Amino acid sequence: MRDTDLLPALLALQPIHDLPRTGWVQRGIQPPESVGDHTLSTAFVVLALAPRVEPALDLGRALALAVLHDVPEVVTGDLPRSAYRLLPAGAKMHMETAAARELLSPLSPAALELWNEYAARSSREARFVRVCDRLQLGLRLVAYLRAGRRGLDEFRATVAELDALEFPAAAALQAEILAAC
Amino acid sequence: MRDTDLLPALLALQPIHDLPRTGWVQRGIQPPESVGDHTLSTAFVVLALAPRVEPALDLGRALALAVLHDVPEVVTGDLPRSAYRLLPAGAKMHMETAAARELLSPLSPAALELWNEYAARSSREARFVRVCDRLQLGLRLVAYLRAGRRGLDEFRATVAELDALEFPAAAALQAEILAAC
Amino acid sequence: MRDTDLLPALLALQPIHDLPRTGWVQRGIQPPESVGDHTLSTAFVVLALAPRVEPALDLGRALALAVLHDVPEVVTGDLPRSAYRLLPAGAKMHMETAAARELLSPLSPAALELWNEYAARSSREARFVRVCDRLQLGLRLVAYLRAGRRGLDEFRATVAELDALEFPAAAALQAEILAAC
Amino acid sequence: MRDTDLLPALLALQPIHDLPRTGWVQRGIQPPESVGDHTLSTAFVVLALAPRVEPALDLGRALALAVLHDVPEVVTGDLPRSAYRLLPAGAKMHMETAAARELLSPLSPAALELWNEYAARSSREARFVRVCDRLQLGLRLVAYLRAGRRGLDEFRATVAELDALEFPAAAALQAEILAAC
Amino acid sequence: MRDTDLLPALLALQPIHDLPRTGWVQRGIQPPESVGDHTLSTAFVVLALAPRVEPALDLGRALALAVLHDVPEVVTGDLPRSAYRLLPAGAKMHMETAAARELLSPLSPAALELWNEYAARSSREARFVRVCDRLQLGLRLVAYLRAGRRGLDEFRATVAELDALEFPAAAALQAEILAAC
Amino acid sequence: MRDTDLLPALLALQPIHDLPRTGWVQRGIQPPESVGDHTLSTAFVVLALAPRVEPALDLGRALALAVLHDVPEVVTGDLPRSAYRLLPAGAKMHMETAAARELLSPLSPAALELWNEYAARSSREARFVRVCDRLQLGLRLVAYLRAGRRGLDEFRATVAELDALEFPAAAALQAEILAAC
Repeated sequence: MRDTDLLPALLALQPIHDLPRTGWVQRGIQPPESVGDHTLSTAFVVLALAPRVEPALDLGRALALAVLHDVPEVVTGDLPRSAYRLLPAGAKMHMETAAARELLSPLSPAALELWNEYAARSSREARFVRVCDRLQLGLRLVAYLRAGRRGLDEFRATVAELDALEFPAAAALQAEILAAC
Repeated sequence: MRDTDLLPALLALQPIHDLPRTGWVQRGIQPPESVGDHTLSTAFVVLALAPRVEPALDLGRALALAVLHDVPEVVTGDLPRSAYRLLPAGAKMHMETAAARELLSPLSPAALELWNEYAARSSREARFVRVCDRLQLGLRLVAYLRAGRRGLDEFRATVAELDALEFPAAAALQAEILAAC
Repeated sequence: MRDTDLLPALLALQPIHDLPRTGWVQRGIQPPESVGDHTLSTAFVVLALAPRVEPALDLGRALALAVLHDVPEVVTGDLPRSAYRLLPAGAKMHMETAAARELLSPLSPAALELWNEYAARSSREARFVRVCDRLQLGLRLVAYLRAGRRGLDEFRATVAELDALEFPAAAALQAEILAAC
Repeated sequence: MRDTDLLPALLALQPIHDLPRTGWVQRGIQPPESVGDHTLSTAFVVLALAPRVEPALDLGRALALAVLHDVPEVVTGDLPRSAYRLLPAGAKMHMETAAARELLSPLSPAALELWNEYAARSSREARFVRVCDRLQLGLRLVAYLRAGRRGLDEFRATVAELDALEFPAAAALQAEILAAC
Repeated sequence: MRDTDLLPALLALQPIHDLPRTGWVQRGIQPPESVGDHTLSTAFVVLALAPRVEPALDLGRALALAVLHDVPEVVTGDLPRSAYRLLPAGAKMHMETAAARELLSPLSPAALELWNEYAARSSREARFVRVCDRLQLGLRLVAYLRAGRRGLDEFRATVAELDALEFPAAAALQAEILAAC
Repeated sequence: MRDTDLLPALLALQPIHDLPRTGWVQRGIQPPESVGDHTLSTAFVVLALAPRVEPALDLGRALALAVLHDVPEVVTGDLPRSAYRLLPAGAKMHMETAAARELLSPLSPAALELWNEYAARSSREARFVRVCDRLQLGLRLVAYLRAGRRGLDEFRATVAELDALEFPAAAALQAEILAAC
């Protein structure tokens, strides 16, 4: 592996900090959370919940999955639910897989493998991170509501629909979030 | 036609003012132009160029097409070129057509027909507005460059690739833009 | 008419996207709607209401008036009501007329004529667009209130004062807005 | 004088922090300096220059004039030069005087007297603050240029036109600014 | 004293307009008030209250103290209460004193003396400005609450704790603020 | 360990997304990178570089350190270099350690241990993350320069001063960054 030429691969990820989470924009939140904000916040949820899961999860692996999970949005933008339900089955996954390959191959082969693991939900860690990704939505929702924002009811429904039963600690946080909004 | 119940249909269009043009975000422009900014600016290009086109265009029709052309992005977000090239052929158009129907049916049947005309490029006005849509990209590019922004070379290429020969006045503006960036 | 030299005329309109609507700023809305956001949103109101008006309006003409109606603010800024009530009678109109001439003459003579028609309210379409301009204020007000903003009571009064009787479809939307805030 | 009821008078001044300086917006600066930023920065120029002026100025008086000088813009917005040259002679001053009365009477009679002194340039301190107000424009211009902004040439001309001869220390700063942009 | 070389000293103060008040950021206010906004607003409180204080205060001196009081934050950032309670006794004051010297020495020796007077609370004017500084927090709190923001209870407590008895007019404003939030 | 009561601990971390990196603000970057943006971007640098380091690093551990490294700034704000050089030796570390304890104890004991490991540089992973933290500064610098920002020379010096010799892959990226700015 060459040690150089990492700079372009790293610069290519920069837009993650500026791309807004489309769902919040659609509900009038200004300024909105960015995809990067969501990513880091998901990593915090992982850090908080993973030690409470039994049998033990691989925390480092789960963190890597969290940090990488939305990287393809740098290329695709954040396609909201209102968009991808209108695409043919599999189209979104195909697009994201191609985007992940473009972005992560030059960064590190290990990173690409991790993203594919997340996309396939092919490990307990991957399924756990997916749950944390949705709980983060609830976390931000509570923060917005406490700051006085309104008109966000549909996001509560999204959190309520989440099936977190595989990870009781996650289900407990889900209940705590729902009780707060 | 009922006179009431327009309020939800109009409120549903509000996010157009806050959704960023993804391409500029991907190149580090902060704060970026919104989809609504782009839409209005395209309407200005139409207003400026249409009277210079022969045989005469229907200016009102062209303006309506311009105002409506990106409305589906309220539902889909602004899918950048880097995204939709990774979708199956026709997927983007299918998604936008469905989004247009959702948004414009409750607004006005005439509006939906106009959007379909634009999507199909089925009139001279529709093809003209498509050209104006791309010229607006060049216009904004010049504005960003004069304000000191850098790193936007690929957008110049997009303007240069545009085939505007059907409308000589548009080709003249294209040349003027390319000479300025 | 020369085909070139449109670029400066189009660039001169760019600030419309960045100039805030002063009234919202005065009431603490951050970030505020821009003059361009208001303009495009007014065009949407025109698109929604015009087909419901009898006898039929010229939709294309009404749209052109809507797109142009606040263009002089690029030169003058958005003078709020709290300002222009302190100017001599006619001073605001004189200033805007001169600004419209500066901005629209190099864009297109037709555009300038349309603006003058709007300013003089010399057609049914012009009076209709003026009503839509005020209804847009109500539309944005409802959006702000649903997002949790407060302290905006005086804007409701402005919508309530509007005389929309010439256009029953507009009066119906006015009632719908007032019922929602 | 009653000690209470100051709260509404103070809240009425809050928009000064959010109103943009229109001239920068017109040249594409985003986000722009606010009227409040300009005001405080002018006060810093006064603090720096006043001790270098002979015969000695009343620094406290000059500071009060600086802090108050643009307060009427809370009511009127920041009317740029491109706007007020299109108003009848005296209209801008009339409007600002009325706005100052509305805003400052409930705050403190002394504040209103100070604003009138500034408006009339009826003291050396008032003329000095006017010079500092223009020098602040140059100061911000240098800051924008050093940050990489472009397209601001006309502001340099405004600084160059300033007649600062009554206050040699101000003229020295003017020269320093012009040499830096 | 040399008349030139003021430009770097003035440019060094520019960040005051962009540094956020950390306490508001910590409570989710976006966009937050800047340190410069707070400074100017404190000067307005001084202008409003000083004429109501007996025996008379030196208004010009109080204004100068207000304008200067947070200047060191340009170098130090706005250390919130949650931070400085974790520093050794005197560390914050030591840091701010050094920062004030760096920033104000090249601006004007008089300005540095004034800042030291404020820091030492060594005059009635200095104590008065400190009270106004805290009242400004309450003023902004009321503005945020009226705009619909929530989750700011701890700031009300800060205003309630203020001991303003030395200046009855300030105590009256404090009561007015507390009654409004 | 209780499964509930995580919500307050997670909400307490939210301000990391809104706190600006003070150094950029001090150099006029608007809008600035947030502490959270920096954190996630540092995690990307870790992901890219770690697989190139020999003997192998614990990637998961390094990622956890990266995600946590600036968490105390939620309580302290981002103290820039210009600030902490004015504090007594050890004061900054004392403050951050206390802040980490407040924030991370309720989140997870493991998280607190990891932060302490980072603060003490007591592992190869901790030293590696510290190098990545500084390289991220260079990464952002390159991004700003390519976007047209200027006036950032001192940040290049900071990157140049970094001693990355323990990790040759990091030194290679450092050289790549320095060559690009």
